[in-house]
Formats: sequence, structure tokens, C-alpha cells
Amino acid sequence: MKRILIDDDHFHDHCGIVGVYGHAEASKLAYLGLYALQHRGQESAGIVSTDGSHLSMVKAMGLVQDIFSSEALARLPGHAAIGHTRYSTAGDSSKLNAQPILIDCNKGHLAIGHNGNLTNAAEWRRKLDHRGSIFQTSSDTEVIFHLMARSSARHLTGALADALRQVEGAYSLVLLGSDELYAIRDPRGFRPLALGRLGEAWIVASETCAFDLVGASYLRDVEPGEMVRISAAGLESIAFAPEKQHQYCIFEHVYFARPDSYVFGRPVNESREMLGRLLAREHPAPTDLVVPVPDSGVPAAIGFALESGIPFRMGLIRNHYVGRTFIEPEQAIRDFGVKLKLNPVRELLEGRRVALVDDSIVRGTTSRKIVRMLREAGASEVHMRISCPPTISPCYYGIDTPTREELIAAQHSIEEIRDFVGADSLGYLSLASLRRAVGDAEERFCTSCYTGRYPTELVQLEVAVERQSR
Amino acid sequence: MKRILIDDDHFHDHCGIVGVYGHAEASKLAYLGLYALQHRGQESAGIVSTDGSHLSMVKAMGLVQDIFSSEALARLPGHAAIGHTRYSTAGDSSKLNAQPILIDCNKGHLAIGHNGNLTNAAEWRRKLDHRGSIFQTSSDTEVIFHLMARSSARHLTGALADALRQVEGAYSLVLLGSDELYAIRDPRGFRPLALGRLGEAWIVASETCAFDLVGASYLRDVEPGEMVRISAAGLESIAFAPEKQHQYCIFEHVYFARPDSYVFGRPVNESREMLGRLLAREHPAPTDLVVPVPDSGVPAAIGFALESGIPFRMGLIRNHYVGRTFIEPEQAIRDFGVKLKLNPVRELLEGRRVALVDDSIVRGTTSRKIVRMLREAGASEVHMRISCPPTISPCYYGIDTPTREELIAAQHSIEEIRDFVGADSLGYLSLASLRRAVGDAEERFCTSCYTGRYPTELVQLEVAVERQSR
Amino acid sequence: MKRILIDDDHFHDHCGIVGVYGHAEASKLAYLGLYALQHRGQESAGIVSTDGSHLSMVKAMGLVQDIFSSEALARLPGHAAIGHTRYSTAGDSSKLNAQPILIDCNKGHLAIGHNGNLTNAAEWRRKLDHRGSIFQTSSDTEVIFHLMARSSARHLTGALADALRQVEGAYSLVLLGSDELYAIRDPRGFRPLALGRLGEAWIVASETCAFDLVGASYLRDVEPGEMVRISAAGLESIAFAPEKQHQYCIFEHVYFARPDSYVFGRPVNESREMLGRLLAREHPAPTDLVVPVPDSGVPAAIGFALESGIPFRMGLIRNHYVGRTFIEPEQAIRDFGVKLKLNPVRELLEGRRVALVDDSIVRGTTSRKIVRMLREAGASEVHMRISCPPTISPCYYGIDTPTREELIAAQHSIEEIRDFVGADSLGYLSLASLRRAVGDAEERFCTSCYTGRYPTELVQLEVAVERQSR
Amino acid sequence: MKRILIDDDHFHDHCGIVGVYGHAEASKLAYLGLYALQHRGQESAGIVSTDGSHLSMVKAMGLVQDIFSSEALARLPGHAAIGHTRYSTAGDSSKLNAQPILIDCNKGHLAIGHNGNLTNAAEWRRKLDHRGSIFQTSSDTEVIFHLMARSSARHLTGALADALRQVEGAYSLVLLGSDELYAIRDPRGFRPLALGRLGEAWIVASETCAFDLVGASYLRDVEPGEMVRISAAGLESIAFAPEKQHQYCIFEHVYFARPDSYVFGRPVNESREMLGRLLAREHPAPTDLVVPVPDSGVPAAIGFALESGIPFRMGLIRNHYVGRTFIEPEQAIRDFGVKLKLNPVRELLEGRRVALVDDSIVRGTTSRKIVRMLREAGASEVHMRISCPPTISPCYYGIDTPTREELIAAQHSIEEIRDFVGADSLGYLSLASLRRAVGDAEERFCTSCYTGRYPTELVQLEVAVERQSR
Repeated sequence: MKRILIDDDHFHDHCGIVGVYGHAEASKLAYLGLYALQHRGQESAGIVSTDGSHLSMVKAMGLVQDIFSSEALARLPGHAAIGHTRYSTAGDSSKLNAQPILIDCNKGHLAIGHNGNLTNAAEWRRKLDHRGSIFQTSSDTEVIFHLMARSSARHLTGALADALRQVEGAYSLVLLGSDELYAIRDPRGFRPLALGRLGEAWIVASETCAFDLVGASYLRDVEPGEMVRISAAGLESIAFAPEKQHQYCIFEHVYFARPDSYVFGRPVNESREMLGRLLAREHPAPTDLVVPVPDSGVPAAIGFALESGIPFRMGLIRNHYVGRTFIEPEQAIRDFGVKLKLNPVRELLEGRRVALVDDSIVRGTTSRKIVRMLREAGASEVHMRISCPPTISPCYYGIDTPTREELIAAQHSIEEIRDFVGADSLGYLSLASLRRAVGDAEERFCTSCYTGRYPTELVQLEVAVERQSR
Repeated sequence: MKRILIDDDHFHDHCGIVGVYGHAEASKLAYLGLYALQHRGQESAGIVSTDGSHLSMVKAMGLVQDIFSSEALARLPGHAAIGHTRYSTAGDSSKLNAQPILIDCNKGHLAIGHNGNLTNAAEWRRKLDHRGSIFQTSSDTEVIFHLMARSSARHLTGALADALRQVEGAYSLVLLGSDELYAIRDPRGFRPLALGRLGEAWIVASETCAFDLVGASYLRDVEPGEMVRISAAGLESIAFAPEKQHQYCIFEHVYFARPDSYVFGRPVNESREMLGRLLAREHPAPTDLVVPVPDSGVPAAIGFALESGIPFRMGLIRNHYVGRTFIEPEQAIRDFGVKLKLNPVRELLEGRRVALVDDSIVRGTTSRKIVRMLREAGASEVHMRISCPPTISPCYYGIDTPTREELIAAQHSIEEIRDFVGADSLGYLSLASLRRAVGDAEERFCTSCYTGRYPTELVQLEVAVERQSR
Repeated sequence: MKRILIDDDHFHDHCGIVGVYGHAEASKLAYLGLYALQHRGQESAGIVSTDGSHLSMVKAMGLVQDIFSSEALARLPGHAAIGHTRYSTAGDSSKLNAQPILIDCNKGHLAIGHNGNLTNAAEWRRKLDHRGSIFQTSSDTEVIFHLMARSSARHLTGALADALRQVEGAYSLVLLGSDELYAIRDPRGFRPLALGRLGEAWIVASETCAFDLVGASYLRDVEPGEMVRISAAGLESIAFAPEKQHQYCIFEHVYFARPDSYVFGRPVNESREMLGRLLAREHPAPTDLVVPVPDSGVPAAIGFALESGIPFRMGLIRNHYVGRTFIEPEQAIRDFGVKLKLNPVRELLEGRRVALVDDSIVRGTTSRKIVRMLREAGASEVHMRISCPPTISPCYYGIDTPTREELIAAQHSIEEIRDFVGADSLGYLSLASLRRAVGDAEERFCTSCYTGRYPTELVQLEVAVERQSR
Repeated sequence: MKRILIDDDHFHDHCGIVGVYGHAEASKLAYLGLYALQHRGQESAGIVSTDGSHLSMVKAMGLVQDIFSSEALARLPGHAAIGHTRYSTAGDSSKLNAQPILIDCNKGHLAIGHNGNLTNAAEWRRKLDHRGSIFQTSSDTEVIFHLMARSSARHLTGALADALRQVEGAYSLVLLGSDELYAIRDPRGFRPLALGRLGEAWIVASETCAFDLVGASYLRDVEPGEMVRISAAGLESIAFAPEKQHQYCIFEHVYFARPDSYVFGRPVNESREMLGRLLAREHPAPTDLVVPVPDSGVPAAIGFALESGIPFRMGLIRNHYVGRTFIEPEQAIRDFGVKLKLNPVRELLEGRRVALVDDSIVRGTTSRKIVRMLREAGASEVHMRISCPPTISPCYYGIDTPTREELIAAQHSIEEIRDFVGADSLGYLSLASLRRAVGDAEERFCTSCYTGRYPTELVQLEVAVERQSR
């Protein structure tokens, strides 16, 4: 019997992280925070807590609410905790790489949770390997621990700073010691990390929606190049590396983050509506309806509708009970995978011209099925509008993307893509409008997936070599 | 550790049903149909299939996709199947009452799935009990089998008709024999049941969204008082009882059904948008935004926005990973249960006047929390608009409702409700507009939850007695 | 990958039953009782408890200790409870037939647990079916409830007596009402049922080993034809049917019961040792060692060794971690199924003449493998001794046996069996010695599996018809 | 509800190991081997297999047969595999420490399974820690990998020898590389490791009973100080360290190993019977019966009975369905934990003088309960006989023992112990007889748990320091 993987052809984030210090129910707050960040990773989740001396861990494959039973939470005592939720492609997902990672070394008993990707991890791994380090996981994150353990700094803070100065790439980190919590962002600030307060307790999380659920207030972001140390002595801010040109991940605003979150200090919903408004200006569509691909396409579609004056309608309904895999009948149903998630509202579509708003086209296969679904439901015309530029390059900074070869826009013209997906017209937002929509006057955002220009040297080199070799 | 039940203070449907005849993968289609009907019941699900002689059953507590593994489906061979998914309040949910119910009697080896409620089941149960019938479940449905077994009719069709003529109330049924499938609707047609075709196979389901997923086409509804028998000989339509005044459940259009379904032959989304439009006319709200309570309030809110010209915005975001229960911290978080499901988009709400559109107020407690949530997110005014009349009476026809005492509108004036929920104004749609929105020119819909006037005698009597005794 | 069923080619009992009345932790005692009776059935187990008004049930497939978690026991409140553990062949085992069976009828809300088999159940089922009863299970036990429900007796005790007077065959029963417990044995007393006391509480169980575990004392057996009713008023003994010639199952003493139990008022271990002693007298074996097939063959082998003066040795070691099924390598290992359970002690066997003592040969396949195993471990001679007569007829009184065709002794002479199993000699105990070993001077034991003479009429008739038709 | 841990007050082994090379179904054979070694550890089990390039792992808490489903075995492809099953005290058992341990280092992708205990692991851990190694587990085994990774030897064999020359203590190891299997025993040979052949394939295992199940033949033991390397090139034997005085664990013969195994080249059953025989000579008991504490006391009791001429009887029956934990009633049952496992056969014991044979007394609490159980069942006298000397010292070589303070014989005279357990007399076997029973003419066995004299320096030092500090 064939069990298929339900994929929606989006880029996927690698994870969400959370940290709590100074609360009697630290692990329960971490659990609620992870629950609010569940959209950032549904493959595995873990929490490590400390009671001031002993670290306890629970991690498993699955969803946050399934892993953290009353019994599991009872095994996570203490006043501080970190949590991690992770997405991973089916192939290499395994409990081995689930986080947090818990270790013992000369700097103590430590746990770490990482959102991002270290671009020089492979290089370091070769070196450490040569020097006799042994690796338990295939994750880049483990390198940080090895560098810390080999640092001559006598204290944890110094060793951590030492280690971080040697790695390159994208990292937002939570690190838990026996009685201290660190929250760290790389000097370019690729990935988000927000700092909040709940009474006397401190909380950090990838997105502010985690604060809302537990009733915490959002203070500020952990800054690029900042290491925040929280302990019994309170909060201490340490600049562990000189500032670099900021490179906030623009795709957080386009797709990843929840619209009710603040990310990089800016409301995500505001960005998304503006993406839709600017898209309507750049690529007007003479249609009867504006229909989003739910749920992620909704805010941009609302923006598009508001700007164009064309009515917004929920022409596609999403089934929210869908799991990650599904048993397909042997007599295959056309577009089965998409139908499990989306169903057209025939009454709205029949005989209408539709502006279909989505946030990205990755391989194009899902878009093609959705367009076909709309036509079969009676739409007379389908004009596809994408709230960002063509995605032409993979991400090296913590996002799970297909290879360049699989990215339809890396290989094909917009007209070819339009033809492939079967739309009557296709419009992508321009890079300038994208920057404008997220308020990026000072070019602090990374847009490498749209430009192929990478802000870190090693990646630049690799990409150049790869290009030559073709 | 306290595990709380996540409830959203809505009426709940009791179930969704599906039946398939004449397909090599009947149980797999039934499974897909149940999956599409998952919104009608998340407590338990079951499928019974037949290979022409032997009936096989799998049923369990849980979600459709969790129960029906490859292994479970492999235990359901044959060319015909019925399926059932069920909601039930926490108290009396148990596997004992999960459906389908499978029995053996003088009419054969039979399985039944029921959506609805028999209003004279208790009376029959007393009589049958007296005559020596024994009951395995506390469900009203079992009565039908006992009446069939005691029928003097020699064949299944006759016995079934006999039994149905003796019961009162609401029932849409699928019944499976060793090589025949029955699909039945009570003479008033309270609950929906649609008939479709997939190649040579027949399919029936509570809503047409089940047809869309498997690629079947919608032919027509099973009619009130009609018994459709499908067997190797094809489809046969039998009028088992004289027609009565139709009593389609109007709440299917207000809340239960998926907007992408046709129910009672009418697109649900069309009804909902019209509810919103008429609500905007009856109770205009001088606001900056129209915000739905997602997901069910979305179509009415879109209608409200279209009619009023006030912009539609997703000011509340729903977390779709929520399960049925959740572990609450001991230091309780204000409005925790609602926060698990909904989070406000502060950026949209701050300083704005909001028209909040929902489809019903049952106890008022959830509405009160949502209004408070909007205010705390900065809304300057909250005008609540409900897309149906005040709910003043319980349902006796298959819907899980609280008692009259718990229904806020049964006990309080609209002004008192407004005060309780904390809104600046509160408007309910009128009954006339409700009927108009669902196209009910001929009064074929049951509106008893809004009027307290019940279409069946026994209920009328009971309600009268209950009123006198107060 | 091939998963094989581990079977040891024994007859299997259908179940163990337990009942408790008058103890604050009734369900916990029932659980411990079932745990002590686990050897009587490993397929499913269930408990129903009552708090004086409401009956609660937990039943599931699996072992007692896996089913009854703290959480499950917490769902079984009250001062009285019955429990059941069940064996069933792989084919027809299903939760549907797990016991206790819980029903609602005009005699109240009732639960029953049954050890035995009603020989006229099929006949009654046809009649009841005809009269309009519907059946939820394929078990014979359900018939008792239908007869009770149709009894004109106004009270439970009378209705139960009425029902029992209409059924034939073997039954030891525990029946729980809202505040009363019945313990019943059929007029021939086929299956055991012992009565005990624990402080003020009463307890009944299939074997006295259940009393030992909970610290209860053994008072006496429930007598054949006796119905013991235990309620707030104390214990009442009712003779519901005239006495018949007793027919205690002799195989309980040969194989089923635990050696530390009293069954039919007699210590099982004493019977088994005497079986071995008499076997040594009837079939002496000129060997170096007496080796049992563990665990069931141990007491008889000890008796054989004591009587013969030949040393007793554990020449076969049993692996007690074995489950019901096992994954076999594709390159099949010779005698794999037996090797999973038993391993020879080469050092003891090498060059020795072995008297191998077992309690029965059913199909002969397992004995053949064991004999081969001993030879491969170096035994120079293997003399097989069986502590009962050849098994030539199936049981109709509650024991799971293969058909007559599969019973090797029904089809073959002792010499042919010896040849098949590959032993140097083979000796079966005589029927007279068997009776003597269990102290059966008055022929109160059923020996139909050894004689083919059945004590109940219907079975006699059936067997006669079957014989003619061959 | 109180769930108690069922402990039987024995020393516990830490694990069983198995390795297979050169078989198409290597992981399935490893699984069967572990199944035969289940008595050596019931807490967790794991298998790592290799297809010549990639290592795959499955490990989990639980029993072998529950962990290794068809699906799990399908995830372990390849022609070589190692397996490990582990016991651990409840406190520190966790998946973190389950084995095999799988790592990546400059010597390759490697997995290891370890039976034993490294006595200088803590010291090495401090040093490695200081040099920047990070530890994923709290197990001593991980040290070996770190030493290998830091070895200057260029190849795996050399690095492994390097590492082993630096560790002290007890270790039997299986180590798997991408296409090679190592089987290693420490220079004193504390723990067993046997080498066998199955067709063209090689197999190693802690005990030969694992060979019997898969049909392999036993060739010889891996020798103390020998490293056996098996690869495509065949088997190679490497002496990685100079020989030391052998120190075979004598308790393997007294209690741990299965009686059907050969351990250190000697049949275990033969040793045990001889223990019983010599015990009967040293401490005759004028009794009516010899009763073993099953199952481990059976062979010694048989020896005792044979030597003394007193009849051997199974006066205690063991329930083999017992799990690791059990729910106890609130009204505690006297000696509940022991009763779950053992039940007396009253008929055998009543009025009899009993020689009770067991293999050890650790804390004395269980013995006390068993003696009381026998007396309550009617035994007139209970003479306890222990088939080894008093256990006065903890083991540092891979056995899980209580602290010296908890060992009753470390603190009390034999008369005091007799008084505590409530026996009429108590006799322990002498050390000389113990050595004689296992054929130890050359003093190749470690007897430190009986003498307090430890064969390794570090332990000698530690014990001396500890003694001084008291």
C-alpha cells in the first residue's frame, strides 16, 4: 500500500528555538513556546531543562503536543530551559540529529539549540576530526561545542565567544548551562531571535508569537553579534564579534514567520499586505476575484485585493487535519497530494477570472496542480501573482531548499514558467518592491535566493567553483 | 499537571458518514471520504467493509489519518464499505459508542453508521428492553437494528423500512449488508446526505467535499424519506415513508459544513457570504476593519466586508496544530484556552475600530475572551456581529448542544450579552435574513435552535413539560 | 519479512476468570488475580468494576500487565469487579470477542466473564435470532444474556437461573450487576472456580494461585450447579439446577493449571508428580537421565525420576522472554520455532540415554523437533514418556483443540507416532493410572479427549453424525 | 497509584553483545543472538549494521523482541552487524547510554558495543575533557573512541590497539567499521566472548546459547588480550597487549550465564551442578526436600539433591509473565514484590523440612521474604544453602552491584544473616569449593566479590583509600 509524503513545494525553515530563565515552570513555558513555533518545524522537538545543577532532556520525533505529555514534562524540572523544533527533509531526518544537543565537556554540562546553518562547518569538521574530535551527529551545530571545548578560555562565556568567532554563517542559538542561559545571534543576524519578559522571568524565541501565548511582553531583538547571558545575576549583553553588514532573511517576511509575529522588529502581516499591494501595482490583473493559496498566501492576497479593488474571496479551502503522510489508492487520483490539502469552492470560481496569489514558486509542480484545480472548478482565466521575485538560488543560511537544478526559476524564463503552470499570466514582484515592502531602505536583508549573490565568502567561492564546473 | 480540554464554544456536529459500493478499493475511498469529513467529528472513526460475504471492521478513538494505517486498511478488503466519524463530548465518549455498529441478526450480518438523533429512541428502548432485547451501546442507533430484527418482513429492505417507520427524529444512515449498501434520509431530511458517482462505483457522503477528494461527481441528494439501495443489481430508490414537511438543518449552512461543500443542494460558501452581506445591512458597523473569528467566521466576514465596503483583514491568526487537550501551566495564563487557538495581529488592530464577525455565540465565554484579546491588542472599539439569530434552544436532531440553561441567549437579552462579552455593540442577524441567505423561500429548513419551536411532536411535548415544570 | 507465530503444540485453555466483592480496591485485586491467571490466556484481558450503580470497563488485546496501567485502573472505580483473560487462536481473535461482555437489558446493566463452552449455543442462537435478538459478538456467552433478558422472572437471580437451565455444556461464570456479584459453575462442573476470602471481601477465581498473590485464603470451590450471589447482604448459595454426574476437566491437572494451584480441591502438583510416578511404573525407561519438556513437564518428570531412581536433570532450557510472534530469517533455521523456546544442555545430554517426559502430544510436530534437538545435542537414546493417554478427540467444553484430523493419536498407532517423533521408545500413561493420579475413584472427571465419549447429549449426537458422514 | 519496581536482589550483568560478519541477513542474526542473550540485559537494546559503506542504527529502551519489528530490521541492511542488550539500574538508565554507540571520527564511521567496565575511565575522561574532547554519554565506553580518534596510528587496527593499551579494566567489545568487525577481550579476560561459525559467516557472542539459536557452531573463545578482526580478507588474530594473569568472572558460572551456554570454554550447567554437590558435602541439611529458588537456583539444587540423596522438588513456582514494574494496591500485600514472581507449592511444603538452595544473598531482603513464604506455606524447617561464598565486596568489572554498605555479608556475620533471613540454618559454599566447581585449578578466575582483593591497581588503590577514610 502506497503511503505518500504530503509536500507543498515551499522552502522549509529548519527550526524554531526558545529559551526561558527564572521561572518555576520553565520547561512548561518552553513547551508552550515551541507549540507556538510549531510551523517552523514539525519533524522533531526537544527540551532541555536545568534545576541549577542537573540538565534533563526529552526529545523525540513528532509534534510538540504529542511529545510533551504530562509525564514527559515532569521529567524536565527546574527554573531554566531551552527548546527546539525542527524540520528536516524525509531523507536525513533522524533522532540522531534532533536538537537540543546535550554534551559534557571541560566547560561543563551543556545543551544547545540552533536555528541556521554554519557555512564553514564542513571545513572545521575536517580540522577537528584530524585533531581527534569525535562526532555524534552529522549536524553542523556540534562544531560549536568542539570549538568551545578546545578553547583556552577558562570560562564558558569566553569559550563560547572564542568558538563563535571561528564559525561563519547563520546562527541564532540558545545554550543552556547548569545555571545560565545564552541567547546569541550571528554578526549578520540572518535568523531572528526576540527577547521578552514574563514577570521576573526572561524568555527568548524565534518569533514573538511565542511570547503572546505565554503572556510575555516583547522587549527587543537579540542584536546581530550579541550574546545575551541570563543567570541568577540577571541579564548581561556581550558583543562577541564586530558588527557586519546585516543580512536579515527576507523570506521570513515573505513566507516563514507567522503573520501575527514581529520578526526583525517588524510586524510580518504588515510586510505581507504591502507585498500584495505592490504586486497589484506592478502586475495588475483584470479579474473578478483575488484568491489566495491558503494559508500563507492570505495576507498578500488581501493586500492585492485592497490595492486593486478586486474582491478578495476564499476560493480554495484548506483541510487542516492533514498529516505528513497519506495512503494513496492504487488507482491514483489526479493531483491527489494537493487535493488532500486544498479544495476549490466551485460556486465562487465558476465562470470567473481569478487572480491567484501565492508567496513563491519553487519547483512549479504544486502551482501547476492548483491552477488545474481552479480551471476544473470552472475558472475562466487564472492569473498567477507571486509576492516575491523568481527564486533562482538555494539558501546556505539555514533554509531547506531544493538544488539549483530543481528550482524552476533558475532554469526557465517567466514565460516558460507561466506555460508550465498553465496560467493565463504570471507576475512576480520585483526585488525593489520586495525590499520596499519589508522596509529595507538600508539593505539590511539577505536576498540571495533571488539574486544568487551571497554575503559570505566561503559560499561565494563555492558557488563560483560550482558555476565554473558546469 | 493539569491537562485542559480545548473547546471553542460552538455547537458540535455528531458525525460524518460515507458509503461506497462497487469499487475494488472501497475501504480506501471510505477512508479518504472520512478524511474530508474530519471536521464533522474528531473523537472516533470506523469503517466496515464487505467482500460480498464477510464484513470486516476497524474502529478506534482518534483521527482518521491516525486510525487507518496501511495495516488497518489491509484488514478491510472488499468492494463495498461504510465509514463514520464521530464527535462526542468528553464525558460520554467511549469506544463502546463509536460507529459503525456491527451486528448479527435474523436479517443478516449488518453494519450501520448514523448521523442524527432519534427522538423516540428512549421510548423504544424501554419497550424493547421489556420484550427482552439486550443493548450493547447507549446509542439511539442500536434501536433501529432491534426493530429490524423483530420485523416480520422477510427481507432486509422490508425490515429496514419497517424499522424506520417506527422511529422519529433525524437520521441520515448508511447501512451495509453482505453485498448491499443502503443510504437513507429521514422523511424530514434534517441531516444531509449526497449521492455521487466515481466511474462505475457509487458513493454517498454527508458533504460533497468527500466527493471532490476522491474525484467523484455529485449527482443529487438522497431525498427525505428515500431509501437508496445499491447492490450488484445497481441503484434502486425506495420511498419508505410518506413525505413530511422538510426540516433541513439550517446550522449546516451557518457553521457545520465546509464552505467548499454543497449541502442540501446549495453551495455553503454562497450562503455564508450572503449571511455576512445581510448582517452588514441589518447591523452596519462604523469601523475601520472587518475581522473574522477564523476559520468558520471567514466567509460571513468577507460578505460583511464586501457589502459594507469596510476592508476585510485577518486580525486573528489561528494555530492549526492545536490538539484536543493541552497541558496548562500552574500559574494560569489569562484566556489560555483561546490563546492556544487564536492570536491577534496587533499591527492591524492597534487604534482601530473593529467589526468582529462570528457565526454564533453559545455560552458567551469564548466571545468574551476574544473581545478582550482584541482590546488588549489595541483595538479602540469592538463591534460584534453574529451571522445568525440568538441561539435560544437546544437541538434534538443530532447536534451536540449545551442545555438551555447554559445558552446565554436563552437567559439574557442582547444588551446583557453585549455587556457580558464586553463589545461596544452587538448585532445578530434576523431569522428572516437567515432564511433568505440560505434560499429558504419555502420554509424547508429547521430553525428550532433559534425559535424553540420543534417540528416533531415528542420533542414539542417534552419541551412543553419541561417549561411547565420550571 | 516473515513473522512466525510461536506455538508449542499444546491444547490451550480459553480463559481465566476472577471476581471480587466488598473491597475498596476491587479492580486492582481483579488485576492481580488476572495476572496470576495469565497462563490461562494471553490474547486479551478485561475488567469491569462497579461502584454500586455504574459499571466501568477496560478491555484490550494483550497481556494483563500491559493493559492495566495506573490510568486504566483509575478508570475502574468501585468495590466490586470481575476480570477475564482469554486465549484464542490467531484467526478469530478480535476485540469483539474479548470479555467481559457488558450489556444493558431489562434485568439491568450487567457484565459477564465466561470460562467454558456452551454446547447448545448455536441452536439457541438460531432460535433467538428468529425471535429478533441481535448479536454483537460471535461468542457463545452472549446467549446467556439474551435468555436472561427474555426470562419472565422479575429479578436478576431468577432470570439468571432461568437462562442457565436452558444452556448445556461447560461454564464457570462471573457476572456483575450494579451491586452484586454472581459466581456460577455448570451442573457437571467441567471448569474450575474457587471461592476465597480476603478480610471482609470475597474473591472467586479459576485457580487458587490468584488467592495466594493477593493474600486471600481459599475457602472451597463453587460447587457444580451452584450459583453464589454476593452482595451487601453477604453470600448466598443457590442451587439453580439439579446435580448431574460431575465432569471435572482432567486436563486441568495434566497441563493447564499452575502446579501451585488447588483445582477441584486438589493440589495440582501432587497430581502431576503422581502422573510421573505411575508413568515410570507403567513404562520404565532404562536411561541415564530424566529430562522434562519445561515448564509444564517438570512435575511429572520429577515424579518419574523419584519413582525410577533415575536422576532428574534440566536438559532443556526454556527462554522465558519469548513473545507470541517472531521474525524468522529468510534462510530458515531448522526447528527455528522450537529453538526460540528451548535449547538443549549439550554437556548433560552428550552420550546419554534420555527419558524425555512431556504432558501431551497433540500434532506431534513439536515433539519431533524436540527429539531431534536432543539427538543433535548428543543424546544416544531418547525415550519419550507422556503423562496421559493418547489424545484422540477434540474438546467441546472450553478448550481450544485442533480438529480430530490434526490429532496425531486419532489417526495413528503408538508405534506410528513413535516413528514420526523419532523416539527410541514411546510410552503413554494409561487411563486408569491417569484417574488414579488425580484421585478420581468416583469417576467425577471428564476424560473425553482420551476416550471420545462425551458426557453431554448434543455433542454425542454431533460426533455420531460426523462419524457416519466419514 | 503506586507502581513498584520488581527487583529480585541479585547482582545484574551489564550487557550481552553479539557480532556477525559475512551474512546476507546479518542484522537478523544479530537480533536472534540478542534475543538469546536477553537475560543479560532487559533495559535497552540496539543493533548497528553496515552494507560495506554506510552504518545504520536502531536502538531503543525495551526488550529485544519489542524493539526489532520487521520495519526496524528493514532499516538495518548489510552483511555485518553488531548488537548490544543492556541492563541498568532504574536511576541512570536512559537512551543516552544505550549501546551500540555510533560516532564519526578521523578513523571512520564506527560503532561499538561493550560488556564490562573500564576502571580508569574517569581518569581518562578528566584528561580528555581537559584536552577538549566533548562527551555525549556518561558511559565509560566512549573513552575508547576518544583515545582512538587521538591516536597517531593511521589505520583503525593500530588506533584501536593504541586506545586499548591505555584503558584498564574489563571489556569484551564488538566494534563495527564500514566493512570490518572487531571482537576484543581485555588482557585479563574478565568478561566472556565466544567465536562461532555459521556457514561462511562469522559470529561472536557473550554466550554460546546465541550460537545455538541461529544454528552456528562454537569454535573457541576470543582470548584475553586478543583482537579478532574480521573483514572481506577473512579472520585475523592480533595480540594487542601482553598477557596478564587471567581474571575470568566467576559469577558468570554462579549466576549470570544461561546453564545451556559454554562460558570461558566450560559448560555452565556442569559448574552449577557441581556447586550444588560440593555445597551438599560442606553443609549437609537433614531435610525432606531440596527446593530451588527458580530459575537460577535450579541446577545447584539438582546437584545438591543428587549428592545428598534428598528429593529435589519444585516447591516454589515462578510466574514468567512478570514485567519490570507493577502496580501495588494501596493496602499493601505482605511480601508483594516477591509474590509477583514466586508462589509456594503448599502441598509439597506442609510439615516438611526444606533445604532451600539459592545462588547468592545480596541485601538479604528477598531471601527473608522467601523464607517467610515457605514457613507460611507450612514448612517446618528452612535450611538455606547458598552456592557461593558470602558476597562482601562490590564489583568494579562490569557487574551492577549495590555498595559495600548494602551488602549484608559485608556488614554481618553468617549467624546474623541467618537470623535476619529467618532460616533455621544457613550455609555458604567455601571459596575453595567454588574454585573447584568451576575447574579453576590455575586461579584464572576473578573472585574479588568474595574476597575484596581486586586484580587491578587502580581499584586496589581506591578501595584502600575508601577503607582508610572510614
